[in-house]
Amino acid sequence: MSSETKIPDATIERVALYLRPLEKLMEKRNQVVSSEKLAEMCKVNPAQVRKDLSFFGGFGVRGVGYEVHDLLIEIKKILASDREWRLGIVGLDDMGMALLYHKNFLKRGYKFVAAFDSDPQKVGKKLPIGLVVQPVTKIKQLVKDLDIEIGVITTSPSRAQDIADIYFEAGILAILNFSPIQLRTPECCLVQNVDFTLNLDHLAYKLSQ
Amino acid sequence: MSSETKIPDATIERVALYLRPLEKLMEKRNQVVSSEKLAEMCKVNPAQVRKDLSFFGGFGVRGVGYEVHDLLIEIKKILASDREWRLGIVGLDDMGMALLYHKNFLKRGYKFVAAFDSDPQKVGKKLPIGLVVQPVTKIKQLVKDLDIEIGVITTSPSRAQDIADIYFEAGILAILNFSPIQLRTPECCLVQNVDFTLNLDHLAYKLSQ
Repeated sequence: MSSETKIPDATIERVALYLRPLEKLMEKRNQVVSSEKLAEMCKVNPAQVRKDLSFFGGFGVRGVGYEVHDLLIEIKKILASDREWRLGIVGLDDMGMALLYHKNFLKRGYKFVAAFDSDPQKVGKKLPIGLVVQPVTKIKQLVKDLDIEIGVITTSPSRAQDIADIYFEAGILAILNFSPIQLRTPECCLVQNVDFTLNLDHLAYKLSQ
Repeated sequence: MSSETKIPDATIERVALYLRPLEKLMEKRNQVVSSEKLAEMCKVNPAQVRKDLSFFGGFGVRGVGYEVHDLLIEIKKILASDREWRLGIVGLDDMGMALLYHKNFLKRGYKFVAAFDSDPQKVGKKLPIGLVVQPVTKIKQLVKDLDIEIGVITTSPSRAQDIADIYFEAGILAILNFSPIQLRTPECCLVQNVDFTLNLDHLAYKLSQ
């Protein structure tokens, strides 16, 4: 891709979605995939796949398809998912624990290197994944010491903004927020909010059609 | 809106996103909102807001903005989120419990009416939200008896397809799947997969720019 080309956010999101089926095709030793097949696996339309992938240079051969291996490597490189990312997490209730043990995170290169909670009963406990629960007062120090790059927030809404502010002060540039509030964010920083009710809204809409 | 107009999925997803700030504006007793303000609150561009809302009829007054109350009511009606939806959930590990206690679900009209698990140690236990954990062998019966409309899956990947099949057989038409596998789905049915690593991919991509 030309470095001047600005790739739309929606394209990036869809391309990330193409990774999963491409990995599956690799596992099954498929060498080539058509845009129709890939589109079907991702539930988008083939023209969309072709348009999205056109941003990433010439992987497609008309009438044949895409080289699975090359396309996979290139997408991972562009999405920066060909490397390990170091995550911290604050808030170790059910959601926090579910994320710490989510198999897909490590598989996709996202590694939790620190886990924080403000509950004195939790601090100091050793988690089965090998981390010791740290107090939130140590976020700033450990973000630096452990090179944490992405901060995850799974606290209650009333605590989430404070934690975000601590992350930002510590130098974190990207937050994945599971708490159902809109965080105030400095311009230099990124927040992705995870809101499952949006998925439910989509299902409800479709069911009501 | 004209009943012949097919609203694109991406529009529906964005419109669902507009609900949250509109609710906030209602709480703060704002009567009117401009497309610029709404766009800023949702982090999309104003032209996109105007285009999306144009599908839903004439709520906007040029140079003034949208009536917050009317727009909110109409969007909720169209998204079918002006009513209660009845949910079942299978898999009561950390993720399942986190969802059962997620405040936003009930607030947005999504009510868990049954919770299932295959672990005999969990079956029969009364959860603090008032539900008694049911065995998976009862899914089929309870989907009917309790009018469950949307089935949530938070089991391990190895169990998820079996559970989906049971849901479908029981007459469930929509599934929200948190298990990291692609479910085989009958044509009549809908599945929304929740994959947090896609949000991380997005952050990782932006950080690497």
